[in-house]
Amino acid sequence: MSTPIGIAVIGAGYWGPNLVRNAQATPALRLEYLCDLDVGRARQVLGQYSTVRATDDLDAVLADPAVQAVAIATPAATHVGIAMAALGAGKHVLVEKPLASTCADGAKVVQAAQDAGRVLMLDHTYCYTPAVTHLRALVRRGELGVLQYLDSVRINLGLVQSDVDVIWDLAPHDLSILDSLLPDEVAPVSVSAHGSDPLGCGQVCVAHLTIALSNGAIAHVHVNWLSPTKVRTTIVGGSRRTVVWDDLNPSQRLAVYDRAIETHDPAELGVEARNQTRVSYRIGDMVAPALPEREALRSMMSEFAASITEGRPPLTDGRSGLRVLALLEAASASLRAQGVSVPVEEVEA
Amino acid sequence: MSTPIGIAVIGAGYWGPNLVRNAQATPALRLEYLCDLDVGRARQVLGQYSTVRATDDLDAVLADPAVQAVAIATPAATHVGIAMAALGAGKHVLVEKPLASTCADGAKVVQAAQDAGRVLMLDHTYCYTPAVTHLRALVRRGELGVLQYLDSVRINLGLVQSDVDVIWDLAPHDLSILDSLLPDEVAPVSVSAHGSDPLGCGQVCVAHLTIALSNGAIAHVHVNWLSPTKVRTTIVGGSRRTVVWDDLNPSQRLAVYDRAIETHDPAELGVEARNQTRVSYRIGDMVAPALPEREALRSMMSEFAASITEGRPPLTDGRSGLRVLALLEAASASLRAQGVSVPVEEVEA
Amino acid sequence: MSTPIGIAVIGAGYWGPNLVRNAQATPALRLEYLCDLDVGRARQVLGQYSTVRATDDLDAVLADPAVQAVAIATPAATHVGIAMAALGAGKHVLVEKPLASTCADGAKVVQAAQDAGRVLMLDHTYCYTPAVTHLRALVRRGELGVLQYLDSVRINLGLVQSDVDVIWDLAPHDLSILDSLLPDEVAPVSVSAHGSDPLGCGQVCVAHLTIALSNGAIAHVHVNWLSPTKVRTTIVGGSRRTVVWDDLNPSQRLAVYDRAIETHDPAELGVEARNQTRVSYRIGDMVAPALPEREALRSMMSEFAASITEGRPPLTDGRSGLRVLALLEAASASLRAQGVSVPVEEVEA
Amino acid sequence: MSTPIGIAVIGAGYWGPNLVRNAQATPALRLEYLCDLDVGRARQVLGQYSTVRATDDLDAVLADPAVQAVAIATPAATHVGIAMAALGAGKHVLVEKPLASTCADGAKVVQAAQDAGRVLMLDHTYCYTPAVTHLRALVRRGELGVLQYLDSVRINLGLVQSDVDVIWDLAPHDLSILDSLLPDEVAPVSVSAHGSDPLGCGQVCVAHLTIALSNGAIAHVHVNWLSPTKVRTTIVGGSRRTVVWDDLNPSQRLAVYDRAIETHDPAELGVEARNQTRVSYRIGDMVAPALPEREALRSMMSEFAASITEGRPPLTDGRSGLRVLALLEAASASLRAQGVSVPVEEVEA
Repeated sequence: MSTPIGIAVIGAGYWGPNLVRNAQATPALRLEYLCDLDVGRARQVLGQYSTVRATDDLDAVLADPAVQAVAIATPAATHVGIAMAALGAGKHVLVEKPLASTCADGAKVVQAAQDAGRVLMLDHTYCYTPAVTHLRALVRRGELGVLQYLDSVRINLGLVQSDVDVIWDLAPHDLSILDSLLPDEVAPVSVSAHGSDPLGCGQVCVAHLTIALSNGAIAHVHVNWLSPTKVRTTIVGGSRRTVVWDDLNPSQRLAVYDRAIETHDPAELGVEARNQTRVSYRIGDMVAPALPEREALRSMMSEFAASITEGRPPLTDGRSGLRVLALLEAASASLRAQGVSVPVEEVEA
Repeated sequence: MSTPIGIAVIGAGYWGPNLVRNAQATPALRLEYLCDLDVGRARQVLGQYSTVRATDDLDAVLADPAVQAVAIATPAATHVGIAMAALGAGKHVLVEKPLASTCADGAKVVQAAQDAGRVLMLDHTYCYTPAVTHLRALVRRGELGVLQYLDSVRINLGLVQSDVDVIWDLAPHDLSILDSLLPDEVAPVSVSAHGSDPLGCGQVCVAHLTIALSNGAIAHVHVNWLSPTKVRTTIVGGSRRTVVWDDLNPSQRLAVYDRAIETHDPAELGVEARNQTRVSYRIGDMVAPALPEREALRSMMSEFAASITEGRPPLTDGRSGLRVLALLEAASASLRAQGVSVPVEEVEA
Repeated sequence: MSTPIGIAVIGAGYWGPNLVRNAQATPALRLEYLCDLDVGRARQVLGQYSTVRATDDLDAVLADPAVQAVAIATPAATHVGIAMAALGAGKHVLVEKPLASTCADGAKVVQAAQDAGRVLMLDHTYCYTPAVTHLRALVRRGELGVLQYLDSVRINLGLVQSDVDVIWDLAPHDLSILDSLLPDEVAPVSVSAHGSDPLGCGQVCVAHLTIALSNGAIAHVHVNWLSPTKVRTTIVGGSRRTVVWDDLNPSQRLAVYDRAIETHDPAELGVEARNQTRVSYRIGDMVAPALPEREALRSMMSEFAASITEGRPPLTDGRSGLRVLALLEAASASLRAQGVSVPVEEVEA
Repeated sequence: MSTPIGIAVIGAGYWGPNLVRNAQATPALRLEYLCDLDVGRARQVLGQYSTVRATDDLDAVLADPAVQAVAIATPAATHVGIAMAALGAGKHVLVEKPLASTCADGAKVVQAAQDAGRVLMLDHTYCYTPAVTHLRALVRRGELGVLQYLDSVRINLGLVQSDVDVIWDLAPHDLSILDSLLPDEVAPVSVSAHGSDPLGCGQVCVAHLTIALSNGAIAHVHVNWLSPTKVRTTIVGGSRRTVVWDDLNPSQRLAVYDRAIETHDPAELGVEARNQTRVSYRIGDMVAPALPEREALRSMMSEFAASITEGRPPLTDGRSGLRVLALLEAASASLRAQGVSVPVEEVEA
């Protein structure tokens, strides 16, 4: 194996420790630093048995030639600044969602990465789960037939936050999964968003997004910080098969139903007394595919390393981050306008 | 016991047989006729061992003084005509949902019943389930605290129909439950509806309704004819407790979570480094109340008989039917207008 | 269709009403009587709208030439007497489990049926469920490979009874299913039974049966009247596939796992440091087959009628009842002897 | 806080890495070594970023005064030897189950620890789960009433092993939980074991243990290496309440059913027509208690440290290990004797 890629993790808060753990477990990477404004917090995350350096000096990290890549897990508002600095220092960049607070800012980062010839990758972790990998292959090979609807529910008692609403906190997961699943010829065209703030905390805590797709289907996302039960279920309905992904059922995450409603041309049918006869039902078996046991974050880290080594864009590149941002911006605009349908800004390929 | 009330069931299609079975099992009722345009179908439903009369002559049924009440389970478009005829003949009327196709028509039936001094009742079956009865008591006694959100999912492979869309077919269940649960001081104010017809069958098969309530909360309803898995789950979120009703889990239909997010006045708190500290979580036990085993339709039939005997409005009277109609009309108007929010017509008490 | 077979149901207690309902719904049968010592109870079961005759005169029923068959759902202790009388009167007999209280008595009934040339059938209802029908086909076609173990759990808050213990009350279901599933070359050879009576009610309420099969596998049955949760799960483990049947999961009653442990000859393998290497795991998909929606009791009634018409033994004939009796007798003998293994008496084919 | 206790983990196989991780996360401990005959394996477990020393020299570890305690996670056959050596060197000892291969050997280790005045603790991890902690308190406070039965199922595709059968591999978990739950006045008196080796691998792979308790109740344990579905469920039935513990349902691990069958003195009751009337049913709510999220192994490590510091026996001390051994020995003896009931050797308090 070639020399590992030196990496620094920036941010020792909620998510940073997961990046630290997985960077250490990825042979193609060598973790050099954990950097946080609170260096004590960084030391605590590393623990007393680690040889990795804790620091609060981002400039020094970016100046260290041993560091070829950074993984940014700081508060959302700081992503753009740190990413731009890192790209400016010639580093490859992995960044937590969302890429930026606006499409315009996000586009600047994408452009900067392109100009610098460096990898820019979004940590859309769910896209690297064995379930989404399998589901994506089914959709894109056409095994579900034509996409008819998508329904994604992500509800739980959540961390009510002062700087983002539940849409910007949770929906990036659903939207990045959607972005990953959709076949090339289908794209989101508009978003309608409804939400409420029953706690009076100044942020929408319960929200519903309805996304019109270019093929006439709709995708719906329900995100909620106030549910005492955790639900993480996505249904992808197709004209031939439908898949239910229940991420909280480890023994049966995916269920592929070989069932469908088939329509018939009324002209071909005779006169009928009752009115339900233009359709028929095909009821086949359900298959729960065996999925590998593999941590998504580990796969994501490997993809980051591989995209650097191979000089190619990663699966969840900056543009996928921009597409998710465009959906979030449209959702926020719709929310402010009482749910009217807002077109989604197109992202150049 | 006093003499039983003579009843005729009109309509021997999908639902009629259930009314026949439950009318026969209700001691306060005596089933005199099953009436259908297709008298052979009526005979088949009764079976070869029954003494109940099958007929296709509705006029004769309405002219028979032994018949004091009718239960109407005919196609939706015929409800108003049959109900008006029955009220005109001095009969008490139980009618399947929806009461009518428009609020205006529905109001005529309500007025006719009032003028005739006869009971008009909607068969909102779900409102008579032990689960809804229990849940309604919890909500109205204030045990959930302030209502924060409602979320109702009713999806299944359904009978795609040519005369109604999925909203008019399935959502009356959710809307009548909502109508039954809401405390007196909270009412629906507007509806936003989104739907799609991916089969191209001329009817919306997948739909999402977002209903703004007068206290700022939102209720959401997802109805879907295309799902290979059946889901019938309603979450009622409150500031003190939240209830999850899973109608397909007979051993644990209701789960009452003694959990909540509590907000604090930031002024009372000190300076903080992180941003999640204005709220705290109360995590208590979950209680699944023991519910009686009782068929909802049996309870509904008993309520019909009791309201006739006692000369009082039933729990699900004509006005509850009108309120559900008003929500359905608003939903259809919103659907035609790409999801804009449409106010709900108020129903006089 | 030919003239329906006249049938009388004997016994209007717990199970009789189900036989009444299904006999009425079976076109090949014509229900003539419901007979019970308590004729008022029989009348109540039939209801006020029925043309079927209620009676307490068994002799008259057996003397009526319109009655060609009887279905016996009386207390267990009376099965033999009524069955013998019915066969003596030339009737075909369907009898609830258990056939008799002893193998010797059961054998007399089987012999009497054979001598009379009449059908003797056991109402082993579960053997007619779509799940067991499917599972039986899988086992007998060899799709599971060699049977390795069976595990059947049937626990619930049950009706503690004074005349039978939990083994004789519940295990006939599991044992008749076992009898139905086993391929011809595998038979039960001995039973070991353990039980307890923690209520001090004079009957074992919790019991475990371990049944040694002729191919070296074991079948285990757990029956329990004291469990507040209902479990009805059977696992059939094979060398190629394993099936889990959860009768309380209507959306996924059968799950066929294409998984197995494969053993290797150690001689073929090299030297190894660790000790788990003689076996490997094959982890394939799980398939939940689409099963028809069909009431088991309806299918059982049709099989009774068909076996009479076609003059052939039914699927669950008298001998299957005897084989179940032999297992129950062995279990009781083992229970009295503190769980020692007791051989199962062989039933002649 | 006082100086942390120096600890070495012996064994870097399947379980060792978990001990390493949790020892590092326990402030009261300081991990000095990971020792394995295969030092490369030990290095790999520690990873390239660790300051902990890897070694294959057990003698040096035991001679190092910085090491005050060892945690032994080596193959079962080596437990006694290493534990005796460690106690001989004055170390406190934490050992994986089983303590030894025989009661006699186990008793020697217990005696040695007592003579040396050192802590001897068994890593009965499950006894430190929040679920067992809660359940134990319920049982011992009498909230379940009189224990009526226990039923423990632990089945999965398991690692078929050449040196131990499924009873010695898996049942120690169930037996240590049983040992922890039983109130002081109830003890196991005998064991009956049945098993089979359908793979022909020389070890029993499917086994059922029936354990008679001194109060007349029975406990049953089903362990199985061949099940394609994982089940880890324990039912503890009491005269007042029954608890179902499903360890694979993280959102509802414990369910406490306020349900029971109550018996009545027949003398108090009148004459009855049917035979089910000596008992009645109390059907109350089910409560799923909120349990803390806490890793069991972390709690176990803390208990080890605390028992050393406080000079007291830990919750799962050597004698609990001996009691589990006595049950295992009785089970093996019963298995060899075709399931006859074998008395359990008493362990002195």
